[in-house]
Amino acid sequence: MDVRVAIDCMGGDHGAHVTVPAALSVLRNDPSVSFILVGRQETLERELARGGPAPEGRIQVRHASQMVEMDEAPATALRGKKDSSMRVAIDLVEQGEAGACVSAGNTGALMAISRFVLGMLPGIDRPAIATLLPTLKGHTHILDLGANVNCAPEHLLQFGIMCAELVSSVEGKQRPTVGLLNIGVENIKGNEQVKQAAELMRTSDLNFHGFVEGDDIYKGTTDVVVCDGFVGNVALKTSEGLAQMLATYLREEFGRNAFTRLAGLVALPVINAFKDRVDHRRYNGASLLGLRGIVVKSHGSADAFAFAFAIQRAVEAARSGVLAHIAERMAAIHKNAA
Amino acid sequence: MDVRVAIDCMGGDHGAHVTVPAALSVLRNDPSVSFILVGRQETLERELARGGPAPEGRIQVRHASQMVEMDEAPATALRGKKDSSMRVAIDLVEQGEAGACVSAGNTGALMAISRFVLGMLPGIDRPAIATLLPTLKGHTHILDLGANVNCAPEHLLQFGIMCAELVSSVEGKQRPTVGLLNIGVENIKGNEQVKQAAELMRTSDLNFHGFVEGDDIYKGTTDVVVCDGFVGNVALKTSEGLAQMLATYLREEFGRNAFTRLAGLVALPVINAFKDRVDHRRYNGASLLGLRGIVVKSHGSADAFAFAFAIQRAVEAARSGVLAHIAERMAAIHKNAA
Repeated sequence: MDVRVAIDCMGGDHGAHVTVPAALSVLRNDPSVSFILVGRQETLERELARGGPAPEGRIQVRHASQMVEMDEAPATALRGKKDSSMRVAIDLVEQGEAGACVSAGNTGALMAISRFVLGMLPGIDRPAIATLLPTLKGHTHILDLGANVNCAPEHLLQFGIMCAELVSSVEGKQRPTVGLLNIGVENIKGNEQVKQAAELMRTSDLNFHGFVEGDDIYKGTTDVVVCDGFVGNVALKTSEGLAQMLATYLREEFGRNAFTRLAGLVALPVINAFKDRVDHRRYNGASLLGLRGIVVKSHGSADAFAFAFAIQRAVEAARSGVLAHIAERMAAIHKNAA
Repeated sequence: MDVRVAIDCMGGDHGAHVTVPAALSVLRNDPSVSFILVGRQETLERELARGGPAPEGRIQVRHASQMVEMDEAPATALRGKKDSSMRVAIDLVEQGEAGACVSAGNTGALMAISRFVLGMLPGIDRPAIATLLPTLKGHTHILDLGANVNCAPEHLLQFGIMCAELVSSVEGKQRPTVGLLNIGVENIKGNEQVKQAAELMRTSDLNFHGFVEGDDIYKGTTDVVVCDGFVGNVALKTSEGLAQMLATYLREEFGRNAFTRLAGLVALPVINAFKDRVDHRRYNGASLLGLRGIVVKSHGSADAFAFAFAIQRAVEAARSGVLAHIAERMAAIHKNAA
């Protein structure tokens, strides 16, 4: 299916130098996608020229005179920067000119502007940030990762419904399993928030697995793991820290002396295969779920390889019809409740 | 300093088969420690005979006729098993016959019985579970890991004070740094719980670093990381899951074919040095802080190598005078507040 995605080319730590080559690489691999690159026209044209010939007619440049800074307060970005590359990319989704948008910019600003411009889907109270993580069985989806520090049980239920629809729409998986993150799997474990959310999920038509624990994320016990934004953010950042520490230790051990360096050379193809398999760049691209439009957030530090994955995530979501599926599901729930 | 530790030899997945050899190994390496092994006399004597000659006069056996099951409800264990090996070991601490006790048994039961038998230190409302984790700089201490699913800001402050006293008492580190786990380092980030706790910590005489994020745990940004038991448990279990997944992937890559297996043989000493460095068994032994006695919890699945680390943790804590230091600190705070 032909799909057009708006790309905020100025966001992130590296801006157009990363976003434009990433867009070109996706374009060359996917004949039915086109992009609107948003940012300073001069910068974008320079990067496009540098990137070599682009497929005819599948790239447009939309000039935006402003940029949201990485540390800018969301409210300032929302009110004061109506011509920022981030805002214009989201506006293009709202106007129906793009089926999705991607940004590596300031998360808070992206969330605030998306919510203001696009609004929420009916029946959804709050947006949530969902991402993919690798597991022993393949991958899982986890949300929320920081959009909501305090969540009522109803919000956790909505997160589960949205993400289950995302998985079934994008991956074609019927009735994906949903786990609720807790500190034990027995019904008596946890705080009131998760106990009540579990009750809501059990009586919903979700394929609810029950409680899962932190290690179940990477075991791949369920297709979806639901938690509040505080817990999800800590789980994700703790994982990043642990992975970095282990990578540093492994590098140090292989660099210890002449023998270990030689062993490292022999083992290099294996170590590279391992690194490739767990490469966090392959999991770049978090979906802001619950909005009336598809918005994908890339890591600010993403390189072109990683940013291309975030673009692909936006393309897949736009093709999948996930928004209509979430809206239908919420309407059915509302009708049953009435 | 001579110290005597009571060991619940029947707890954990493996019981006396693991706990007795672990005790013997610690005894052989530390001439100023003695143990009271608690459990079924017959079992303990058999394991002691199997373990070879024990240092003269430094091992006593105390018979206990009951055992707390790993899945037993804490209330049942507390009320119904007054002669369990766990209960007797804790009683020995209460009676002053042992300076500390160690158990690999049921965490909930250990906490409930310890709290009932030993009581809380003055000024401490709730016990917390603290453990060591490896970091890029050495190690850090994190608490709470699951004793408290809902914490008021005052509890988080008390956790910080207790763990800072533990670090200064055991490691001789003056004014260890304390970080409060949050989803961002700016003051506006997080929920009300952490914002208010940060305010309390800032105005206390803790060496308060401020907010830290999940990745700061393994970066070793602070000596102590404070969080509530829900968040801490998720962070710890998520780390366990990630580490297991990475270990599995590494094994799979080295086992892929004849060439990778050969590379694995060449790299084996390096991989072993790496595994040794991050071996979670070295970090076994969580302290139940806040009680009027030293209680250390070992992983239920610990082998003898791991259980010996938990015993050493108990020995170090008993030698350090940490309980008196926490009590003094709380009395000083109380006096200043009055």
